[in-house]
Amino acid sequence: MSEFPSTHNEFSSSNDPAVGGIAADRLRSIIERVERLEEERKGLAGDIKDIFTEAKSAGFDVKVIRQIIRLRKQEPAEVEEQETLLDIYRRALGM
Amino acid sequence: MSEFPSTHNEFSSSNDPAVGGIAADRLRSIIERVERLEEERKGLAGDIKDIFTEAKSAGFDVKVIRQIIRLRKQEPAEVEEQETLLDIYRRALGM
Amino acid sequence: MSEFPSTHNEFSSSNDPAVGGIAADRLRSIIERVERLEEERKGLAGDIKDIFTEAKSAGFDVKVIRQIIRLRKQEPAEVEEQETLLDIYRRALGM
Amino acid sequence: MSEFPSTHNEFSSSNDPAVGGIAADRLRSIIERVERLEEERKGLAGDIKDIFTEAKSAGFDVKVIRQIIRLRKQEPAEVEEQETLLDIYRRALGM
Repeated sequence: MSEFPSTHNEFSSSNDPAVGGIAADRLRSIIERVERLEEERKGLAGDIKDIFTEAKSAGFDVKVIRQIIRLRKQEPAEVEEQETLLDIYRRALGM
Repeated sequence: MSEFPSTHNEFSSSNDPAVGGIAADRLRSIIERVERLEEERKGLAGDIKDIFTEAKSAGFDVKVIRQIIRLRKQEPAEVEEQETLLDIYRRALGM
Repeated sequence: MSEFPSTHNEFSSSNDPAVGGIAADRLRSIIERVERLEEERKGLAGDIKDIFTEAKSAGFDVKVIRQIIRLRKQEPAEVEEQETLLDIYRRALGM
Repeated sequence: MSEFPSTHNEFSSSNDPAVGGIAADRLRSIIERVERLEEERKGLAGDIKDIFTEAKSAGFDVKVIRQIIRLRKQEPAEVEEQETLLDIYRRALGM
């Protein structure tokens, strides 16, 4: 029964009240920590959105800024190679 | 030309070096702040993953914990209503 | 009780066997049609993957092909404007 | 140069006009086939949406139907095990 913490059972004498044979406090702690971190992630997503709103107000193109951020994550040599290929493919297609 | 910050131009006398008529420092600041926040988000995603790894090691079922977290985000009355309907639909389908 | 089809109830005299007051056949039909369409979608996703595998075998760069497909969805004027801005931003950032 | 199809080059005598050393017709064929399949996928997504609209009009709860579809994809034994665990965890948390 891998689903049940082996160190806790119905007869557990630890301080963790076991309900139905599981470590209730441990489970609650896990869930609350995940929820807290998810809240923080949502906060960061909001902060990022605010910066893009600021960028737009300042007259920048948000889609282009996102493209810049993607390019900065890649190696310069890789970016250059892909841009060369993109040019070749476009010319081949008459674009 | 909404893409160009109206308060900055090639003849700008501010401290912000304008390149091609845009506020380079402002653009750099926007990009670096977004990158920093994205790094933090990635860090949080890693922290959440670590907690689920811990949960699994402690014998918990991670999929069920995720379901618990989803349920806790809903109103109890809504959860109950949906569970009632789920039962009805399953019975109707012979599941 | 908006969840229960108003035209079907426990005392329905139609051919649709009502279980728990709902139109079981209607529900089953809805679910099976969705499942069939989802299967087709999965099939198409597999076909697309196969074409990219073929492209790779033929020596093409799959990431660049995806970029071409994205570009073809946009208006040429929009593509050109964004590429101009991308160049300006890159120069401003010294990239 | 793995990016360039080895069987096609600028001096290719095949019927495929090679532009910049690449097999233009082959590239075009790949792209158009992917675009066609993506169109079909979009069509199917629309069909699925229409069925859910129909389900809603008929008085069904769309979220619950989606849950039914998820459950039908799993093995019955797996569903039962997860529901048992969900009950245990909820009781442990006093939900």
